[in-house]
Amino acid sequence: MKRIRIRKGDHIYEGIEMPSVEEDYIVLKLDNGYNIGFRREGIDIEVIGEFEGYSKKIEWKAETKYRKDLKDVAILGTGGTIASKIDYTTGAVYPAFSPEELEAMVPEIFEIANIYPREIFQILSENMDVDKWIKIGKTVVEEINRGRGVVIAHGTDTMHYTASFLSFTLKNLNLPVVLTGSQRSSDRPSSDSKMNIYCSVKFATTDYNRVVVCMHGSMEDTFCYVHRGVKVRKNHTSRRDAFQSVNTKPVARVSYDGKIEFFEDLPEKHEGKTYFDDRIEKKVFLLKVFPGISPEIIDFLIDEGYKGIVLEGTGLGHVPSFLYDSIKKGIERGVTFCMTSQCINGRVNMNVYQTGRKLKALGVIPCEDILPEACYTKMMHVLGHTEEYSEIKRLMRMNLSGEITKDTVIL
Amino acid sequence: MKRIRIRKGDHIYEGIEMPSVEEDYIVLKLDNGYNIGFRREGIDIEVIGEFEGYSKKIEWKAETKYRKDLKDVAILGTGGTIASKIDYTTGAVYPAFSPEELEAMVPEIFEIANIYPREIFQILSENMDVDKWIKIGKTVVEEINRGRGVVIAHGTDTMHYTASFLSFTLKNLNLPVVLTGSQRSSDRPSSDSKMNIYCSVKFATTDYNRVVVCMHGSMEDTFCYVHRGVKVRKNHTSRRDAFQSVNTKPVARVSYDGKIEFFEDLPEKHEGKTYFDDRIEKKVFLLKVFPGISPEIIDFLIDEGYKGIVLEGTGLGHVPSFLYDSIKKGIERGVTFCMTSQCINGRVNMNVYQTGRKLKALGVIPCEDILPEACYTKMMHVLGHTEEYSEIKRLMRMNLSGEITKDTVIL
Repeated sequence: MKRIRIRKGDHIYEGIEMPSVEEDYIVLKLDNGYNIGFRREGIDIEVIGEFEGYSKKIEWKAETKYRKDLKDVAILGTGGTIASKIDYTTGAVYPAFSPEELEAMVPEIFEIANIYPREIFQILSENMDVDKWIKIGKTVVEEINRGRGVVIAHGTDTMHYTASFLSFTLKNLNLPVVLTGSQRSSDRPSSDSKMNIYCSVKFATTDYNRVVVCMHGSMEDTFCYVHRGVKVRKNHTSRRDAFQSVNTKPVARVSYDGKIEFFEDLPEKHEGKTYFDDRIEKKVFLLKVFPGISPEIIDFLIDEGYKGIVLEGTGLGHVPSFLYDSIKKGIERGVTFCMTSQCINGRVNMNVYQTGRKLKALGVIPCEDILPEACYTKMMHVLGHTEEYSEIKRLMRMNLSGEITKDTVIL
Repeated sequence: MKRIRIRKGDHIYEGIEMPSVEEDYIVLKLDNGYNIGFRREGIDIEVIGEFEGYSKKIEWKAETKYRKDLKDVAILGTGGTIASKIDYTTGAVYPAFSPEELEAMVPEIFEIANIYPREIFQILSENMDVDKWIKIGKTVVEEINRGRGVVIAHGTDTMHYTASFLSFTLKNLNLPVVLTGSQRSSDRPSSDSKMNIYCSVKFATTDYNRVVVCMHGSMEDTFCYVHRGVKVRKNHTSRRDAFQSVNTKPVARVSYDGKIEFFEDLPEKHEGKTYFDDRIEKKVFLLKVFPGISPEIIDFLIDEGYKGIVLEGTGLGHVPSFLYDSIKKGIERGVTFCMTSQCINGRVNMNVYQTGRKLKALGVIPCEDILPEACYTKMMHVLGHTEEYSEIKRLMRMNLSGEITKDTVIL
């Protein structure tokens, strides 16, 4: 990679040239970490050197650092912004979650746990898919069965989808599984990586044996909230505190000084060994409903062999009545339809209006206050275990992993 | 309709039998307005009389009540919960938005405006579609051109979709168009109808010449918030204060004592007569993206002749890279793709990651902080006017009706 100098009018910029997808633009990583783009037209570009990449390679001596008084925590890398320092520097030698990188970024974590970094893969999280979830799940089980709490570094785009998938498929969990990420890359001054990793590692040393997401609790670098993996959502495109618990309060608050405050009791311990339940039905579709949607889309999904369709309905759980015939046809052919709400907050209630009752009579399963994203992953799990409608309905309406908040329905 | 008495164990319930879609259930409207459902098995049912329906018919004398010192406000009925007293009572004689009904429910509105009620149709709002929107739009224009501010009573499920559609298609608006509805039906003690109608009529007498939504501002019966039609969303399935402005503050607050507090300046007056712009492209699809979505769905929409697809992407505006080829094919065939975010809050930014830049290079149009629902209706409007990509892009990224909040992009 080249170190270049750009002259634009009276201004001079120096930095490393980044790969750019648009030919008429050049992107520079400035020394302060920020990227800046220039239209090639009207600027002078001068190559002033070669950039070697982050090539120093230090031998990691986990054993020599091992402390008997600390718990063991595995940090699993999957890519995303939290690892994006490396994303930009193609040709760099060591991976983002190498111990060296972690030690340089958050040395404090080595004081609170014995750290075992491990890279599963390097992707941006919009490219997450079911096969990668399975790979993550199986890796988590390996680490848990070595007695290590787990932190998963993950892109934020789909972190809540992954968290809910793991919530349903990791069984007999007896240590915490904490997903975390970063809304600003770790080589930028405003990065949230450092505190998110610190708080996540801290939480991974507790006895809270469930899948959670741990991210900034406010705009400041003061504390993180820990959210149930099935009840959390990325509710803002860019804010550090984008992740919020929906229809429930967070599990805990982890301060940057290491203090943990729980808002609920610790779950009970499970009997038996942790394992990954790989009975998963991949052919599930998450369909948002809107005025002007056409029944042909449902016919198409039925013809494509989808086994389950999560409807993100309007209001209390409704769809236009011109979809009824297609839904009916789907149900007759063994497709399961589950109802969630695009309102995001609140609970589906298909008893209030006749249209809701009609959909229920057709066989659409009302899914209480399960988030559409969590309902999607739950359906993959449930349909992997049974094809019988009454059993599917029983499981979808049963609280398997905290996805249904116990509450009376407020009309 | 029959008045019946139900005996279940030691309890006795009396009320009017409601239509029920499930044969093994009976639904009773109690005298306090609440509905209650019973499984027919194990109860005694006794018919104790006939219910005549709300059959009194009073001659309305708008002219005799006309007061020169008050502004004129048309109240247009379209159905929904706010009119559900009638929904339940099939066979009732007068429509929900008859003057008699309004006078019985909110007599105060006749003190603040000359009221002109008019029913357009009676539907539940999940059945709203583009043709009905056009009908509403044309009716609004008629009333505006009679010098009347307009209140539209609407089901809450899709009220924000309708509000954004009207925001783009009503041109040269010189009087307010206020959509309102009800989360609890008007024959129930907890109904929010009364205050919502009152505050909406009050706001319809102002000079704020835009399309807005006016609904409860809190759980209490104290004030309503007025939201821009393009920036509002139903964010809760059942709460009275479900409607919230997203990425911006409300336009105004209307207290139940009639006081209006504006949070922004009044818009300028338009030259020329108000009209409805009926150049609309109906073949637009709103597609929520999720891990595990397949490119076949996009291929299908292209083959079905859709002209526009609003992507509800993840994070800052991303889709899995395995969709790129299908999106590219669509764009080559003249389909427009616009990017919004399923985070709901925040702004799309396709410059931060290479995947975003790649999508932009393919021709996907980043739509700033336009809500997915508003982007859907905007695209119908824009594609109705031009098929040229550069012009579509210019219009989609231009602030036409307040749908784009002016703000620097926070990374």
